Amino acid sequence: MRASAGREKPADFPSLVPATSPRPAPVRVALLGCGHVGSAVADLLALRAPEIAIRTGMYFELVGVAVADLSRERPGATALDRALFTSDAKALVERDDVDVVVELIGGLDPARTLVEAALCKGKPVVTANKVLLAQAGAELSAIASAHGVDLLYEAAVGGAIPVVRPLRESLAGERVLRVTGILNGTTNYILTRMTDDAMDYADALAEAQHLGLAERDPSADVSGDDAAAKAAILAALAFGSDVLGTTVSREGITGIRALDVAHASRLGYVIKLLAVAELLDGGPDVSVRVHPAMVPAAHPLASVRGAFNAVFVEGEACGEIMLYGRGAGGAPTASAVLGDLIDAARNLRAGSHAPAPHRAKTTVRPPSELSAAFYISLDVLDRPGVLAAVAAAFGAHGVSIRAMEQEGVGREARLVFLTHSAREGDVRATLETLREIETVERVGTVLRVIGPGDGALGQAPTGTGA
Amino acid sequence: MRASAGREKPADFPSLVPATSPRPAPVRVALLGCGHVGSAVADLLALRAPEIAIRTGMYFELVGVAVADLSRERPGATALDRALFTSDAKALVERDDVDVVVELIGGLDPARTLVEAALCKGKPVVTANKVLLAQAGAELSAIASAHGVDLLYEAAVGGAIPVVRPLRESLAGERVLRVTGILNGTTNYILTRMTDDAMDYADALAEAQHLGLAERDPSADVSGDDAAAKAAILAALAFGSDVLGTTVSREGITGIRALDVAHASRLGYVIKLLAVAELLDGGPDVSVRVHPAMVPAAHPLASVRGAFNAVFVEGEACGEIMLYGRGAGGAPTASAVLGDLIDAARNLRAGSHAPAPHRAKTTVRPPSELSAAFYISLDVLDRPGVLAAVAAAFGAHGVSIRAMEQEGVGREARLVFLTHSAREGDVRATLETLREIETVERVGTVLRVIGPGDGALGQAPTGTGA
Repeated sequence: MRASAGREKPADFPSLVPATSPRPAPVRVALLGCGHVGSAVADLLALRAPEIAIRTGMYFELVGVAVADLSRERPGATALDRALFTSDAKALVERDDVDVVVELIGGLDPARTLVEAALCKGKPVVTANKVLLAQAGAELSAIASAHGVDLLYEAAVGGAIPVVRPLRESLAGERVLRVTGILNGTTNYILTRMTDDAMDYADALAEAQHLGLAERDPSADVSGDDAAAKAAILAALAFGSDVLGTTVSREGITGIRALDVAHASRLGYVIKLLAVAELLDGGPDVSVRVHPAMVPAAHPLASVRGAFNAVFVEGEACGEIMLYGRGAGGAPTASAVLGDLIDAARNLRAGSHAPAPHRAKTTVRPPSELSAAFYISLDVLDRPGVLAAVAAAFGAHGVSIRAMEQEGVGREARLVFLTHSAREGDVRATLETLREIETVERVGTVLRVIGPGDGALGQAPTGTGA
Repeated sequence: MRASAGREKPADFPSLVPATSPRPAPVRVALLGCGHVGSAVADLLALRAPEIAIRTGMYFELVGVAVADLSRERPGATALDRALFTSDAKALVERDDVDVVVELIGGLDPARTLVEAALCKGKPVVTANKVLLAQAGAELSAIASAHGVDLLYEAAVGGAIPVVRPLRESLAGERVLRVTGILNGTTNYILTRMTDDAMDYADALAEAQHLGLAERDPSADVSGDDAAAKAAILAALAFGSDVLGTTVSREGITGIRALDVAHASRLGYVIKLLAVAELLDGGPDVSVRVHPAMVPAAHPLASVRGAFNAVFVEGEACGEIMLYGRGAGGAPTASAVLGDLIDAARNLRAGSHAPAPHRAKTTVRPPSELSAAFYISLDVLDRPGVLAAVAAAFGAHGVSIRAMEQEGVGREARLVFLTHSAREGDVRATLETLREIETVERVGTVLRVIGPGDGALGQAPTGTGA
């Protein structure tokens, strides 16, 4: 069943709407931004308000929509009264007849100023803005707490998937050990096509662009920047870390070749771009990072295909939990916004607010200090002695080899290695040495390998952190 | 990472525990029942209380544990002071120094009386009792609402998996169309072994019993009774239905043979026991049912293996969401109980409570009025004319055949049919006619087939409901 924007009339639920039911006092909503998600939120509010009123006792009324360009056509927002539009977002936020603010502008500015202004006025804010949360989540949460109102952002990570609320509430008593997400639909689509249909990276990217799944400039997705912001949010939720999204260590998928994907498949793995937030050695050290990895085909994350997203949580008591669904798109993201909006309005009415995010003093350890098994592909000259030289380089840095395979001959010769679990710093040093070997033409793809021996998701912390 | 009961000392988080932090006023907890889950809750409370206090500002203190048999050894509850035990549950619930009650006795009585007593005293109740919720959820929720306190039951469906809170809160603005769960770990384990290792039902059941995954008397699991109670709870959460667990239509897995599983695999399906709550024709009619079904191998539910559980939600705006994890076990279930306990205590402090479950007037339509594609296996005499007679029986009831295959010859001959989507009542009538055919020795397994043409999960509603 595909998501649809919900164009039907609320009269679909006639038996649920008593003709005489009084309309409850409205909750007046200001919408900042009216792109894909904003239009979908406006539509849902317009079409579902009567049904939501019956279910929740609250009638949502959109009282203003701030947009940058008043003249632009907005074919998405079919149910929107154009008279609601304004270009003065600040004035809209501060209007006395606005109870709740929904921020869907995206980016740091002016979103940050507007959200602060709303919170300082005692108005709850619902946002889907991952960049804002990843950069200023701690400060904004503190402002929200100080004013006793909600700052809710279920839609900022994983679109329609319930992620934020489960981590904050359902797992409030849990000692979370690791959270691993597939949180960028664009790169997951590209990797899925490379895996299922042996496409190469450029073709898969072009197809994703053609389908509207990738931007014309795809760099924010394929570089891991988008996933890095979400990793920072996950780290804050799971461990109370205040790591900034911009400082999260990241590797993208641009270097992954069709033959790496094929090789991973033969070994029983699929390549996925993972956003990881992990407690190290029982805390307070954490690792927060984004990188592609070889995930065992039987792992639940391996079955997350195409543009779908998922968050895999490992906790001490709960074991493994996976939350899966549509990570993007107007209607799915709007569904999450609406859930938050109902929560915020309910809390506003009750004079309460959602639990403030837990903040703790954590230290982010750099990936170089962590350990994992690695997949390393080398383009080499097919000459006697090359393997000996390469093996010596591994040995010199204490990286032990679990398996090696030569593919191709002559100019096409390639050596593919799987290492035992090794400290990433040692692996990087090995790569430096390998680059100096005359018969090594190129160090190709380097991927972490997730396997039973290395913790359920790769990067087991080393015993001796710096 | 396997769940473990969490035996370490809270001192694992030394940097998070300021030496001078004042201990907040305690939240005093009464525990009713001290089996697997009760012991795990007691352990978690004892070991995590300081850490939870830092994260939430609330210090949980276990002030009493009601058990039926005071003399019984309880090796699970390592951290429990025996002086807390009492055999008088009623008195414990009503003690003035009890703030919150956790009911883990299970079953209808005396749990129901005790939960009512707690709620009437204005004490929030957290329970993992699916039978209680499925039979008396509506009344107990009404009592909780009337007294302005929480009745929370995340652990009653899907163990550690966040299911109740996402459906109640994250999807509060969503028009949910269908919720499909794999909610019985015992049967999923048996079916997984039959699928992966070609075991027959009896051997897989025996192994599950040996591993402690199935009871000595497995009937509540294999008959679908356990899943039916959970289906009723899902229907209440998703649609506000007040269907009783005992009235949910159910079929178990006892009739499924190794050859059905093998045949499903060849056709690209896996057999799963599904608990389904579905809105029909836009509502208010619903279907609530439990039955095995052939699920396409690429469907997310097909990848839910062994004792794991999952809930697959289809909504109009959110699209497809799946929530996956450990559906049973002491520690995972205790994790969900603890999340609810923190929520209940927070609301108690704030003088608020979780949103009351939405109740709506829905009508449960019997499965016979729904449509699906079916898999039907017939043991037949291998004689000329048998197929003609069988085909005539299908035709007489308007059930059209999509594919047919004969397996075996002579005494072992078997005909396997896949139908196009057909009304279940017509299929049942066809089976009656087939049983009267002399050359049909036995009507074997009959399974719904979930396919792209029949809605994402089988039973598409018929256009003409009675």
